[in-house]
Amino acid sequence: MIKITFPDQKVREYPEGTTAMEIAKSISEGLARNVLAAKINGEVWDATRPINADAQLQLLTWDDTAGKSTMWHSSAHLMAEALEAFYPGIKFGIGPPIDHGFYYDVALGDPTISSEDFPKIEAKMLELAKQANKYVRKEVGKQEAIAYFTEKGDQYKLDLLQELEDGKITFYEQGNFTDLCRGPHIPDTGSIKAVKLMNIAGAYWRGDEKNKQLTRIYGITFPKKSQLDEYLAMLEEAKKRDHRKIGKEMNIFTFDEDVGPGLPLWLPNGAVMIEELERLAKRSEHSAGYQRVRTPHIAKESMYLTSGHLPYYQDSMFPPMDMDGEKYYLKAMNCPHHHKIFKELNPSYRDLPIRLAEYGTCYRYEQSGELFGLMRVRSLQMNDAHIYCTREQFADEFKAVNEMYLKYFRIFGIEKYVMRFSTHEPKKLGVKYVDNPELWLQTEDMVRQVLIDSKIPYVEVPDEGAFYGPKIDVQVWSAIGREFTLATNQVDFAVPARFGLTYRNSNNEFETPICIHRAPLGTHERFIGFLIEHFAGNFPIWLAPKQVAVLPISDKYLDYAKKVLQFLRNADIRGLLDDRDEKIGKKIRDSELKKVPYMLIVGEKEAAENKVSVRKHGEGDTGSVNIADFIQSVQDEINKCLELN
Amino acid sequence: MIKITFPDQKVREYPEGTTAMEIAKSISEGLARNVLAAKINGEVWDATRPINADAQLQLLTWDDTAGKSTMWHSSAHLMAEALEAFYPGIKFGIGPPIDHGFYYDVALGDPTISSEDFPKIEAKMLELAKQANKYVRKEVGKQEAIAYFTEKGDQYKLDLLQELEDGKITFYEQGNFTDLCRGPHIPDTGSIKAVKLMNIAGAYWRGDEKNKQLTRIYGITFPKKSQLDEYLAMLEEAKKRDHRKIGKEMNIFTFDEDVGPGLPLWLPNGAVMIEELERLAKRSEHSAGYQRVRTPHIAKESMYLTSGHLPYYQDSMFPPMDMDGEKYYLKAMNCPHHHKIFKELNPSYRDLPIRLAEYGTCYRYEQSGELFGLMRVRSLQMNDAHIYCTREQFADEFKAVNEMYLKYFRIFGIEKYVMRFSTHEPKKLGVKYVDNPELWLQTEDMVRQVLIDSKIPYVEVPDEGAFYGPKIDVQVWSAIGREFTLATNQVDFAVPARFGLTYRNSNNEFETPICIHRAPLGTHERFIGFLIEHFAGNFPIWLAPKQVAVLPISDKYLDYAKKVLQFLRNADIRGLLDDRDEKIGKKIRDSELKKVPYMLIVGEKEAAENKVSVRKHGEGDTGSVNIADFIQSVQDEINKCLELN
Repeated sequence: MIKITFPDQKVREYPEGTTAMEIAKSISEGLARNVLAAKINGEVWDATRPINADAQLQLLTWDDTAGKSTMWHSSAHLMAEALEAFYPGIKFGIGPPIDHGFYYDVALGDPTISSEDFPKIEAKMLELAKQANKYVRKEVGKQEAIAYFTEKGDQYKLDLLQELEDGKITFYEQGNFTDLCRGPHIPDTGSIKAVKLMNIAGAYWRGDEKNKQLTRIYGITFPKKSQLDEYLAMLEEAKKRDHRKIGKEMNIFTFDEDVGPGLPLWLPNGAVMIEELERLAKRSEHSAGYQRVRTPHIAKESMYLTSGHLPYYQDSMFPPMDMDGEKYYLKAMNCPHHHKIFKELNPSYRDLPIRLAEYGTCYRYEQSGELFGLMRVRSLQMNDAHIYCTREQFADEFKAVNEMYLKYFRIFGIEKYVMRFSTHEPKKLGVKYVDNPELWLQTEDMVRQVLIDSKIPYVEVPDEGAFYGPKIDVQVWSAIGREFTLATNQVDFAVPARFGLTYRNSNNEFETPICIHRAPLGTHERFIGFLIEHFAGNFPIWLAPKQVAVLPISDKYLDYAKKVLQFLRNADIRGLLDDRDEKIGKKIRDSELKKVPYMLIVGEKEAAENKVSVRKHGEGDTGSVNIADFIQSVQDEINKCLELN
Repeated sequence: MIKITFPDQKVREYPEGTTAMEIAKSISEGLARNVLAAKINGEVWDATRPINADAQLQLLTWDDTAGKSTMWHSSAHLMAEALEAFYPGIKFGIGPPIDHGFYYDVALGDPTISSEDFPKIEAKMLELAKQANKYVRKEVGKQEAIAYFTEKGDQYKLDLLQELEDGKITFYEQGNFTDLCRGPHIPDTGSIKAVKLMNIAGAYWRGDEKNKQLTRIYGITFPKKSQLDEYLAMLEEAKKRDHRKIGKEMNIFTFDEDVGPGLPLWLPNGAVMIEELERLAKRSEHSAGYQRVRTPHIAKESMYLTSGHLPYYQDSMFPPMDMDGEKYYLKAMNCPHHHKIFKELNPSYRDLPIRLAEYGTCYRYEQSGELFGLMRVRSLQMNDAHIYCTREQFADEFKAVNEMYLKYFRIFGIEKYVMRFSTHEPKKLGVKYVDNPELWLQTEDMVRQVLIDSKIPYVEVPDEGAFYGPKIDVQVWSAIGREFTLATNQVDFAVPARFGLTYRNSNNEFETPICIHRAPLGTHERFIGFLIEHFAGNFPIWLAPKQVAVLPISDKYLDYAKKVLQFLRNADIRGLLDDRDEKIGKKIRDSELKKVPYMLIVGEKEAAENKVSVRKHGEGDTGSVNIADFIQSVQDEINKCLELN
């Protein structure tokens, strides 16, 4: 018998050679139907592979990232089988799962393939899927493998085989298709219930443009037809909400050839959003006891040699400027500057924790081909802060940071989120991780406990911590269900020592503080890109670039309209006046297109009575009120959004 | 007879050869006693020099910069005469007036001179001054001049003579001293009533370190003894108020060797001040209809070639970064980025004026020897904006900018200020000035009219405009009477065209806007440096880094003190808690030293009654109030400071 330990730490015994699928069945047939793969001692396996020794087991379904990924990998094989049916002699490169679906790189010879061929391939894949063909794992000797693909004439697989070690080679077969593959795969094709091929692109073999260009076919599959429909609807919606498109329509940001790629210029409407975000952050941070600092955007080479960013991080930094015989670098992160400020403050334990916050703009080099709208840029305005604390203070500080995240999630209506908690691997202490096993365990325990206590959904990812401590990446989903990595939280118990940072403890001895790097709103660039999609440009009133449009019925009421505009301005409400010589219906339609939350129609009656007729964006007329009451109601709405009541 | 035109445009006739002094006497003996020199057709002359043709005349007294400057120049000659009396054989380099006083570079041979010798030299100068020796101008031929200084053995004067043109050489003599000098000078030494030698430094002949080092002696003189006393008292006070000293004591800013010279790091207390200044500016600008933008700190070379900053301004820019085969520069000014945003907004005349504001940090290269505290730095956080308007809108826009200045002067208690209005010189159109005579005259007239209408003290300085339009530099005086150049205002009718900026006018044709560059608060660096001196660190409450110190009488009341602190934080008031185990008297003294505006003493009685005992910095106990009332009174005080009532 072997002992199987489940995620809840319960242990059951099974005969040697039992498979994960058999274990699932022993629990419930319903569960077993959903099992796509299994994690055995942290490694993803075929659910049908015999387990021959005691093991930790986690059954993987569609709800697990690794479950999805396994199914998409198997779907790539399914597509290959369908392709081979239509295009005999087709050769195959690699066919991995990706974040959303899978692709296969293929060499077609004479025939070409286009999106017009997708329907017949999809139909064939569904036909083959219905057969519920098993994915069969076969260990194969290297000679045998080479013989197989030599006969098939697939030079790409032969190329891959060259690098593989004899004794560690596996084939996977399903239906009429055999592939060189290390797996794992789902039990059979029957789980694949919906199929969509997405698009075609060219891709050089092994990413090297000196090699032959193959055809890359992207697809995605789901265990339910309804999930595919939802996914396609989401993509359709995402296209409408594309931050580059809305960003241009709403005059939020632009790029300019003379300024440079990846360096957004924020137009007035975008600057308003930035300032509102900063105002929110400053307010939250002020009441949480943060202090703000301001540091230059450059520093000498010596600072980055101390921090260790040079030479290790050099490729992500901008090239240096040579001045007065020294090299100066644009900062790619704020921590070294903040460490210098901590040092200057020369604190005692009574001053700790010290929380230094800054909206510091950093500059990072990205290949120009990698740049993408606001999502991948070269200038980053970061909601950055570094918290310097004692070990005793660490848990409370970390908890407070998490509470700030939760507050922001509420304010921005972010309903789905998960924290990815990356820890160290004890075997790699002193190599990949700073060699302080006790501090690793202690801080990881504290972080884990905070996550559990705060009831924040999280996944723990071993062996992905930073060099200097555990870290948390925050994933959020936009209103239409797209995933974004927005923010990061890192514990640092190594770099403060490199900078010689100390505080005097209560015995008047010097101790090194722990540092928490945190950026709950991430960068303005990425966060505003996310918000554009999340709200489709219909921002909550406090964030809307223009909050109120004043629409005079005719030029006769322009003076009154200007008076209303000035009232709004004095109350710090962002108004705009449509003084064009247009019909009121046209003005209303244009304001709706500009997504302005409120419209104030002013004509003879309103001017006479010092009132405004209010229309709400997307909702229509809400009646006539006097201007002071309207302003009060807007201010109340803003305060409510920001939890200021 | 010749016609003399006075500054008020009145004309009187005088015989040919009349001197300015004689004219002054013809008006009033009292006036004549104060005359130090005269401006004849804009050029400063000896008041005793005959006028032989019609002329514009302005009499210069101690109240005129040029009057002071002339007296200090004459004082350098007086010091030289005194030095020659004590050190026969002394040689003289140059002896010009400076902003405050004068210096003379001298070569002493064997004897040395130190500040211990100052009293005897000062006494000698006063003795000679009392003789009221006339400064006599003599035109001298080059040969005669060479002969004179050859005999005297003064190689420095001979060196200077080499470059002078025969027929344009003058000597000035007073008492026993003769100098090679183009003048002008005061009528006689009798006006010099108070003398102070300030210090001694080394200075290479002609500023070249390959030359011999001379001894530079600095001094200052006044027409009244009381003025010298005031000046010395001001210097003493300025030393106490030195922004570097107070900046360190109050933890406002620091420099770090690894960051680089001229690149201040703003500590939390400094960052608070910056944020308050920005809040004030944003509020003022928002209600004045400005829109904010955000632009990167870098741009490609091509942008600065278009703006013309490259190559003309290259020496003041940081060296480039080479990236992707292109040169990128740190921005030394924000205008080109703002021009790009204006272009992207693609406005019509209805959208004008467009006022784009940004606290953009710029970087300018200064020689490391020129760097000085916050006054001369390499990173500049500018309160910058560019107003794009039509010609018709220009006067109103310019007026509004001036009103903003006046508002700031009131808020900061700046009582003495003057605007230096620099205009063009018609003869230099197309050379030093963009060739648009009509626009120069039109905008200069409008600017002048605005200055007159606003009753702002100003001086007009011909031939000092910028290339692209007239400009205004704002000089202010700190509370102790030191002068600072803080801000600048420029009219620009050339660069918008270089960037191809246009708006559609009411006939749907494209026109180029006028641009106003304005920065009423200048840079944070210089302005905060000024404010530190101006307030001696005792900042008005809205600007104070820490506004309220909470001082528990003993540890027993620490919980209540923390509650009070949190109340303050929630009301956005910057509190600090002195939780040290010290006597309350010591805590009060330390808070006074830290210049915290209010202290709240909390003990048993206060905790029981939910009150605080208030002490005002520098004033003492003001009684016990409940915490909400205290907060309200602080908020009222802040609003009053900022004219928000």
